[in-house]
Amino acid sequence: MKQRRTVFFVSDQTGVTAETMGHSLLTQFDSLEFSPVTLPFISSVDKARDAVNRINLAAQEQGARPVVFATFVDAEVRDVVRTARCLFLDFFDAFLGPLEREFAELSTHALGRAHGVTDIRAYALRINATNFALANDDGAHTHDYERADLILLGVSRSGKTPTCVYMAMQYGTFAANYPLTDEDLLDGRLPPAVAPFRARLFGLTIAPDRLQQIRQERRPDSRYASLQQCDWEVRTAERMFAKEGVPFLDTTECSIEEIAARVLERLGIPRRVRP
Amino acid sequence: MKQRRTVFFVSDQTGVTAETMGHSLLTQFDSLEFSPVTLPFISSVDKARDAVNRINLAAQEQGARPVVFATFVDAEVRDVVRTARCLFLDFFDAFLGPLEREFAELSTHALGRAHGVTDIRAYALRINATNFALANDDGAHTHDYERADLILLGVSRSGKTPTCVYMAMQYGTFAANYPLTDEDLLDGRLPPAVAPFRARLFGLTIAPDRLQQIRQERRPDSRYASLQQCDWEVRTAERMFAKEGVPFLDTTECSIEEIAARVLERLGIPRRVRP
Repeated sequence: MKQRRTVFFVSDQTGVTAETMGHSLLTQFDSLEFSPVTLPFISSVDKARDAVNRINLAAQEQGARPVVFATFVDAEVRDVVRTARCLFLDFFDAFLGPLEREFAELSTHALGRAHGVTDIRAYALRINATNFALANDDGAHTHDYERADLILLGVSRSGKTPTCVYMAMQYGTFAANYPLTDEDLLDGRLPPAVAPFRARLFGLTIAPDRLQQIRQERRPDSRYASLQQCDWEVRTAERMFAKEGVPFLDTTECSIEEIAARVLERLGIPRRVRP
Repeated sequence: MKQRRTVFFVSDQTGVTAETMGHSLLTQFDSLEFSPVTLPFISSVDKARDAVNRINLAAQEQGARPVVFATFVDAEVRDVVRTARCLFLDFFDAFLGPLEREFAELSTHALGRAHGVTDIRAYALRINATNFALANDDGAHTHDYERADLILLGVSRSGKTPTCVYMAMQYGTFAANYPLTDEDLLDGRLPPAVAPFRARLFGLTIAPDRLQQIRQERRPDSRYASLQQCDWEVRTAERMFAKEGVPFLDTTECSIEEIAARVLERLGIPRRVRP
């Protein structure tokens, strides 16, 4: 039987950083099972005491101390939470010391900086980029491609939309996408709407059986979801990418994060907003 | 003059975790200026050597060693990068030791787990949630509200759309949004389309002058962007939220991450996918 542990992500902010780091670490221990609990906005000593009670209760119920991944800016609140019965790992605490010595100054310990609106321009950029991704999502509004940093090409359900939205939110990229239709595929050349933007094109492809699986969920037992159709579309699209010199990526084994990072790296598009 | 430092985020994966943690830490040092460089997918000794060269070059040009935030799973590659002239901080390296002792097993050091597609269900859920957010974005498709985990209410440009998309991508939440029109506001009650879903409603509000600033960018010098109109819409919406018992949040000082985390916490909606 697998060892089970409750894992807490505790922060005086959103907890997203603690969750991201913590999960990255926990994936390295795949013989254990983890029950995750996020406690965001623990920004006072009172809330910290409530958190301690929850952690201690989990320790008691499970018969093993929980792991607590924390990102506290406020040292007083952190010191309360660390009294809980747990393995307490604070990401800020561990690295602020070396950074302070390096920069020879004390950190400001300013709450809420990490994900606060420190820069209205960056905020507006993310929103504008997201709206751009939504407005240029289906190949219908191709007149806005002039403003696009990149245009993703691919057959239906190859991962274009979530990748565009993710790049907009996380990187501030203006990403359009153009779904390759049967007509485009039969034609075998770059669709006229995207042909003028060759340097900004990037193709997404996917294993036909995986595509079938995804489409099957959307329109069960349709021609659209048949393996034969998926196979034809994918092979024809890949041939077009190769023939037209459009760089492309097989997304079958990729997460959205990885697709986005690889596309931006390959096209040399820099991050416009910090994560 | 501010001290300047080049900062590298280096990883054998996307680098997103290193960027997130690194930026959180750097915001604590606001008297310095940082030039960020991300080097993702450093997954071989050859690529690691290239990274070392880039770091050393930056050290030479700047006359100060760069800070390197790293998340390496592969110890061999990590050990090459750490030979660069830099302050080397590896998030995995620092915490895997304590976790290994706690769990009394060696970590698997399996590359690409953190953001790999380990779970096709989670991947499909994020995509479905994103599509749901896009399809239920403008108040036009209200027939799908039955499937919504929550429905955000607010005036135009109060932050609804990016929040819904972010929640879909990062939490797997099915989030719809309904823009309050002048007609709804004059009516003063919950719009009929959302009234049946009272427990799932959440309002977003914003300071009128900030709203004006955002709208001004979209439609300069329009009635829509006038301070008078913004002020009237915001005050009327807030009165409706209060009267109808709809919880609401002032987003003026909030990032998208924070809005999402606060809304989900308040409505008690759990994370459906890990970050």
